[in-house]
Amino acid sequence: MKLPRGFVASGVRAGIRKKRPDLGLILAEEGASAAAVFTRNKFQAAPVLLSKSALKKSGGRVKAVVVNAGCANAVTGNEGLAAAKRVRTRTAELVRCDENEVFLASTGVIGVVLPDNKVRTSLPDAVNRLSSGGIDAFSHAILTTDVGPKVAQATFTLGGKRGRLVGVAKGAGMIHPNMATMLAFVMTDANVAPVTLQRALRSSVDQSFNAISVDGDTSTNDCVLLLASGKLGNESRADLADFQRALDAVCRELAWMIVRDGEGATRVMEIEVHGAKSERDARLAAHAVATSPLVKTALHGGDPNWGRILAAVGRSGARFSIKRVSLSAGPITLVRDGQPAPYREKDAARVFSRERVPLRVDLGAGNARAVVLASDLGHDYVSLNADYRS
Amino acid sequence: MKLPRGFVASGVRAGIRKKRPDLGLILAEEGASAAAVFTRNKFQAAPVLLSKSALKKSGGRVKAVVVNAGCANAVTGNEGLAAAKRVRTRTAELVRCDENEVFLASTGVIGVVLPDNKVRTSLPDAVNRLSSGGIDAFSHAILTTDVGPKVAQATFTLGGKRGRLVGVAKGAGMIHPNMATMLAFVMTDANVAPVTLQRALRSSVDQSFNAISVDGDTSTNDCVLLLASGKLGNESRADLADFQRALDAVCRELAWMIVRDGEGATRVMEIEVHGAKSERDARLAAHAVATSPLVKTALHGGDPNWGRILAAVGRSGARFSIKRVSLSAGPITLVRDGQPAPYREKDAARVFSRERVPLRVDLGAGNARAVVLASDLGHDYVSLNADYRS
Repeated sequence: MKLPRGFVASGVRAGIRKKRPDLGLILAEEGASAAAVFTRNKFQAAPVLLSKSALKKSGGRVKAVVVNAGCANAVTGNEGLAAAKRVRTRTAELVRCDENEVFLASTGVIGVVLPDNKVRTSLPDAVNRLSSGGIDAFSHAILTTDVGPKVAQATFTLGGKRGRLVGVAKGAGMIHPNMATMLAFVMTDANVAPVTLQRALRSSVDQSFNAISVDGDTSTNDCVLLLASGKLGNESRADLADFQRALDAVCRELAWMIVRDGEGATRVMEIEVHGAKSERDARLAAHAVATSPLVKTALHGGDPNWGRILAAVGRSGARFSIKRVSLSAGPITLVRDGQPAPYREKDAARVFSRERVPLRVDLGAGNARAVVLASDLGHDYVSLNADYRS
Repeated sequence: MKLPRGFVASGVRAGIRKKRPDLGLILAEEGASAAAVFTRNKFQAAPVLLSKSALKKSGGRVKAVVVNAGCANAVTGNEGLAAAKRVRTRTAELVRCDENEVFLASTGVIGVVLPDNKVRTSLPDAVNRLSSGGIDAFSHAILTTDVGPKVAQATFTLGGKRGRLVGVAKGAGMIHPNMATMLAFVMTDANVAPVTLQRALRSSVDQSFNAISVDGDTSTNDCVLLLASGKLGNESRADLADFQRALDAVCRELAWMIVRDGEGATRVMEIEVHGAKSERDARLAAHAVATSPLVKTALHGGDPNWGRILAAVGRSGARFSIKRVSLSAGPITLVRDGQPAPYREKDAARVFSRERVPLRVDLGAGNARAVVLASDLGHDYVSLNADYRS
């Protein structure tokens, strides 16, 4: 796959991980407008802290993105910050830009300071290998224990011109513990100002990356970055509707890939909560179902165990009357107005055995809705995460 | 074990479960003051709804407690309510009391109406078998898939007299899915008015049953009932401090038994959060650690994976500065003032391999604290809960 105009990328081995590419570089050749969303965890990693303040200082301009796998550089105090700063300085020298136009991201073990000498030594090689097709090497270099790379693209029309979006992500795979980091980078040739870009990204993230759950844990390093090179040359006041649609699609596709590739995941449930009093209520109910170990283990077994789903909705804090609640799985109605509905067990079992299980909860309390994707909880999750760190 | 003066109990087979006792009865021979705490799940089961309103109508007086296993009678609408009412009517006839002096509790599968004919047919047998030593039969009859019965006792001095407390509970064992119900019944010969009793129970429950987590799910049927026969004959204005201490001890012991017997549990962590700005903050942080699948799987593996513990604290919503956070496991300091502390891996591994793993988080933000007990998450949990309902 080629990157949108204005971007080149590469992926190389820096030796942080054994025998695996672990350093990715993206270069916006003439710079790019940038928008980003970061983890809300209080223990934000050194690269998160630096990238947040750099974006502010540069007024939303980014020229280079440096991503390493194998070390999260989180809970590493001043030493971790100093290591990240040295990577930033070296990158700015190599690609000739302001330090605040360098965006950093890290993923890997918590509590270990980034071996920045390895990164700095390998950066020239990463710069040499930059190419428009380098997104493939980049997509591999940012992985930890993901089963495979995650890349998605879409096209859009903006001000009468045909533009492109390409996104790349890594999910939560955790053979080495603590590698729960979700990272995503989306690039486009559209010409969009940083403030507008931030609004578009926030809207897409809310219904994609913020609407998935593998295990309910939020990492110290999560971030989603959107870069726009402006090479499309569209007027800056063009209608963004089709761009937003394409951005939504790319973010949703990457989010789906992350859930589908959750540790040990064999199945994904799509929890659609309708009829809520507020969007917050809808989200509360959907997230309670998405993170319930009882629901997730039943999903793993393909068991249409609806009592657990309603029990999770019931403790979620969402406001509703139990006499108005209905629940269905695909075409099968399981509960109508708070009372069990007649259905054939084998019909329900068939729906719960699919790769994607569509659940619909109607709270009967209003008009708000929310959708959350969540993986099942199986033996492989326990095996991957109970192992001693190695 | 003998019950406190004024109580008799029994446990029999009603045929709701196959080849297992499944019906328990407690009789307060001359009635008892009662206090109760119920699940906050919106989907409260029929017995919960009836018992709540009965306690109100009787002014906190209870004469009989009827508990069945094998069927939760939850999300069963009007049919479920009618079935529970028939059990109540029959019980009141047999023990000659007002219907509102009958307390009902059920545990088992959600969405199935109680086969009340089986209960009503077996009630005379349960009445015939009532005895002071019948607490053992009762403790077995209320179990679902708990590994064993859970009984605890304590003595206290009240108004110069020596009284007794005996508590019995069932926990969350779920070979048959949906049997996540926590039930506890505590009896005493103390003479305490219902309002005072309720205050004492609420205080004990907050630091025992409300401070444990097996999987973060709250069932539709949870309840804790405290009955006081008054046979001790103490003055009603006597100082309750020692009674409260004994009640705390019995509730904590039962709560510990429930966590230790959580499905697939091999280990329990005691999460003590200190230095919080408020008790709410302390609880938020402790519960985030207690319910984190990443922390619970690492605990299962005996892995001193502190990054996961702090990541959970960091997303909990508790207010603190990361530069002031410290974390220790038993005598080992893992993080001091937000920076990794030097420790020997094998020393930490030894602490994390204990049956009870003491974790202490100091938020450095205030003086409030909270303690939560939580089990690990292992393969047996997945196996028990992914099985098809049988």
